[in-house]
Amino acid sequence: MDSALKTGLFIININNIAYPDINIQGDDLIDPWNSTSVDYEKLVQQFGIKPFKELLKDIENPSFLMERGIIFGHRDFGRIVKAMREKTPFTVVTGMMPSGKMHIGHKMIVDQLIWYQSKDAEIYIPIADMESYSARGVDFNDSRKLALEEYITNYIALGLDFQSKNVRTYLQSENRDVNDLAYKLARKVNWNEMKAIYGFSGSTNIAHLYAPLIQVADILHPQLDTYGGPKPVVVPVGPDQDPHIRLTRDIAERFKNQFQFIAPSSTYHRFITGLTGGKMSSSKPKTAIFLSDSPDVAEKKIKTAKTGGRESLDEQRKMGGVPEDCVVYEMLLYHLVDDDQELNSIHSQCKSGEIMCGECKAQAAVKVRELFETLAQKREKARGQAIKVLED
Amino acid sequence: MDSALKTGLFIININNIAYPDINIQGDDLIDPWNSTSVDYEKLVQQFGIKPFKELLKDIENPSFLMERGIIFGHRDFGRIVKAMREKTPFTVVTGMMPSGKMHIGHKMIVDQLIWYQSKDAEIYIPIADMESYSARGVDFNDSRKLALEEYITNYIALGLDFQSKNVRTYLQSENRDVNDLAYKLARKVNWNEMKAIYGFSGSTNIAHLYAPLIQVADILHPQLDTYGGPKPVVVPVGPDQDPHIRLTRDIAERFKNQFQFIAPSSTYHRFITGLTGGKMSSSKPKTAIFLSDSPDVAEKKIKTAKTGGRESLDEQRKMGGVPEDCVVYEMLLYHLVDDDQELNSIHSQCKSGEIMCGECKAQAAVKVRELFETLAQKREKARGQAIKVLED
Repeated sequence: MDSALKTGLFIININNIAYPDINIQGDDLIDPWNSTSVDYEKLVQQFGIKPFKELLKDIENPSFLMERGIIFGHRDFGRIVKAMREKTPFTVVTGMMPSGKMHIGHKMIVDQLIWYQSKDAEIYIPIADMESYSARGVDFNDSRKLALEEYITNYIALGLDFQSKNVRTYLQSENRDVNDLAYKLARKVNWNEMKAIYGFSGSTNIAHLYAPLIQVADILHPQLDTYGGPKPVVVPVGPDQDPHIRLTRDIAERFKNQFQFIAPSSTYHRFITGLTGGKMSSSKPKTAIFLSDSPDVAEKKIKTAKTGGRESLDEQRKMGGVPEDCVVYEMLLYHLVDDDQELNSIHSQCKSGEIMCGECKAQAAVKVRELFETLAQKREKARGQAIKVLED
Repeated sequence: MDSALKTGLFIININNIAYPDINIQGDDLIDPWNSTSVDYEKLVQQFGIKPFKELLKDIENPSFLMERGIIFGHRDFGRIVKAMREKTPFTVVTGMMPSGKMHIGHKMIVDQLIWYQSKDAEIYIPIADMESYSARGVDFNDSRKLALEEYITNYIALGLDFQSKNVRTYLQSENRDVNDLAYKLARKVNWNEMKAIYGFSGSTNIAHLYAPLIQVADILHPQLDTYGGPKPVVVPVGPDQDPHIRLTRDIAERFKNQFQFIAPSSTYHRFITGLTGGKMSSSKPKTAIFLSDSPDVAEKKIKTAKTGGRESLDEQRKMGGVPEDCVVYEMLLYHLVDDDQELNSIHSQCKSGEIMCGECKAQAAVKVRELFETLAQKREKARGQAIKVLED
């Protein structure tokens, strides 16, 4: 599975899910926020995920990811809206799987956490070292090191405040409550279900087969009495993780009498496109800008990115560019331009043929350089703080 | 699975094992120690279990269970013999699954532990609360209570010294090292293997499916560095548990480079016959004398037991009885008569028709009463000690 897909929760091998085909959308679309080739509308229709925009008006100061439709769907997010409005406790759970380097696509999940932090959410960050061991053979010590030095360092550099008491970060392998709960929950899930959801086969190792239960427990354990009891919980994920969310919600229901679980809510975000047009993946360095890239390298990479430009400059002046099919535009939309007016202006300049790709890339490169210069500085400072995160 | 079979290790549902048919042996046999209807010789031949008697001469003061052929087979017990001779450390692991009441058949495992204790073995007693939860739905608190009040109380009353530092008793659910190791080991076992060994199906719950790995870790964890490193370990079991032993030995081999495990040894003991002639089972009260039965009840029960008597007294005087097919004789052999001469004398009196079943039963009843009177007294004292066993 591609690492662009694991910004949301974890990597789980979901092999045989009947997701609708990915449709390339034509350039007849005018939605400026839509810059992707996945037919998210269809996802929403077929799997009962609700469109996020219907809730937008009820959210005070929504995240730009919500406003721009990057977070496009949800299940039961109304519970979270209510908790925010009524200032009652709620929780966000989002895991990190220490495997490879973080790329700019992963920033999206940190941006969501920062927003939730501003809404006084309690934040749980499980580090999926058990999954990493069983699915990828990563040693537990290596997972710990990678989580601290790469992931948490970047999370801090990007602006998440780990010193807040509301942030709980843990290694799965060290969290006894999670492991205990996983085993309890595992009693009401059988092999047929696991096979159908995760595509496991006879040669799947038993640790790998068991790992999703640990993740279900990651999501449900904040509702145990020791952690304050039942409360709304939201899990921000990519749509590929929805089967896992559905299983978790089913299991919550199966143990409702015992634990009074409230079924967890979820939000669904679009994937970021890789520099070459496919998926952005840590394992394919040409597709990704890594958060640890130097400002020079990051700048060079954005300049090589695939754009929505036409065959010739003449044609582009006449017909305009296709921002919906442009990696650079997507980067501006997701990460580089805060101001909506500025983004709108770039979008219409492109569509009308006023600005060519070269110029646009040059502007984007300046912004990328700024972002990466700041990040590099902040990461230096973050390192010392990161290594203490697992110490309590 | 019958509870008579779980004295050795734990209950594991082993459904599809191709054990040879059970053959009723004729009364042409003259071995006074053979009082069972299972063809253990065949077990030994077909599954590569070695006959125990070949080692008997090398063991100083062997247990009566060894001398009487009740422990009939082994794998690699030579390692244990060597450790005993050279006074180097070795370990015995035998779990208890808290489920129902202990019957007299379970005494056999305690007798083995007492013998190993006299040989300075380190003894690990995992309480299989995780297995009990996943296979039988027994709540963790109930398991703990049952283990202390029923099992450990009886173990102490029967003579096992839990105050020795060499005895380590723990609840699986509370042993982090065991759980961590189980997950690590689970990476090199797949679903196909588990299915073949334990007969799991698509509807098997994931906790149940995972439980055997916990038991593998119960057996292997005494060899971790924290517990003194690699050493010979022996697991006394009934032959039905051999597939589990084989899996454990295979897994030890798969992780040899990482942990330097020595493949665990095992011994195999005969099952005790139930009062009605079939298996002794806690779930079928008429088949079992429970350790908590009053001396009166125990005495009454032995008097109702199926014997190896003939159709009529006349016939029996002429042809003699069949001690090999007599529950009362088996009880004498396993539990009631320490002295070999006395046992031999009863055996030949029976075979020669000198003693009839009524008289023999009356003598056995006296012995049962004595045993149960002593046990009742000792259990009273043991209670206070038992509740402290899990406290360190």
